[in-house]
Amino acid sequence: MSQQQVEEIMKRINSHKGVKALIIINKDGLLLKTNMEMNATTEQLIKNIHELSLAARRLIRDVDPHDDLMFLRTLSDKDEILISPDVNFTVIVIQEHSGDVSKVASDASWTS
Amino acid sequence: MSQQQVEEIMKRINSHKGVKALIIINKDGLLLKTNMEMNATTEQLIKNIHELSLAARRLIRDVDPHDDLMFLRTLSDKDEILISPDVNFTVIVIQEHSGDVSKVASDASWTS
Repeated sequence: MSQQQVEEIMKRINSHKGVKALIIINKDGLLLKTNMEMNATTEQLIKNIHELSLAARRLIRDVDPHDDLMFLRTLSDKDEILISPDVNFTVIVIQEHSGDVSKVASDASWTS
Repeated sequence: MSQQQVEEIMKRINSHKGVKALIIINKDGLLLKTNMEMNATTEQLIKNIHELSLAARRLIRDVDPHDDLMFLRTLSDKDEILISPDVNFTVIVIQEHSGDVSKVASDASWTS
């Protein structure tokens, strides 16, 4: 991915409402770009997200070796983390709850 | 969770179109109920899902110790895995791509 492509993706995502942080890592989990302040907490966060993404891929491949992870989304009380892995890099967005949380929540409504 | 509640949840989820498998585990990852055939592959799958769920919770708590995982969703080329953790048990649904894949894909469209 060229520097220009990275800048283009950053710009496009940052224009979305509610986006709090943006991280792009390569397939080995190394940081390519972020708008977060780099410190030990951010480094740990990136490490955790990379590990989560690997665990999700492992899970899917165990179910079907020909299948692959396209998208991973965590919803917490406060934020959403969207993880979109590609062959060479992974784009991660941390954002406030978007309008479709109700949609996700309704998907989960079988537990209530 | 009573046996009756488990049966009720199983019944409700199974009535959804596209549902391929259903698993309920307790907070330690032990199987409470499933409609899957139990073998080594299923056991590994349950272990992987439990670990993924723990990794997601760890990630969210690292960002904000007062926050907690509400919902986790993986989208692969073939299936979706929906993981809904509660205090005492976690409900897991494996389903075919539902109609809102386009929605998820459009959320991820900043990478294309």
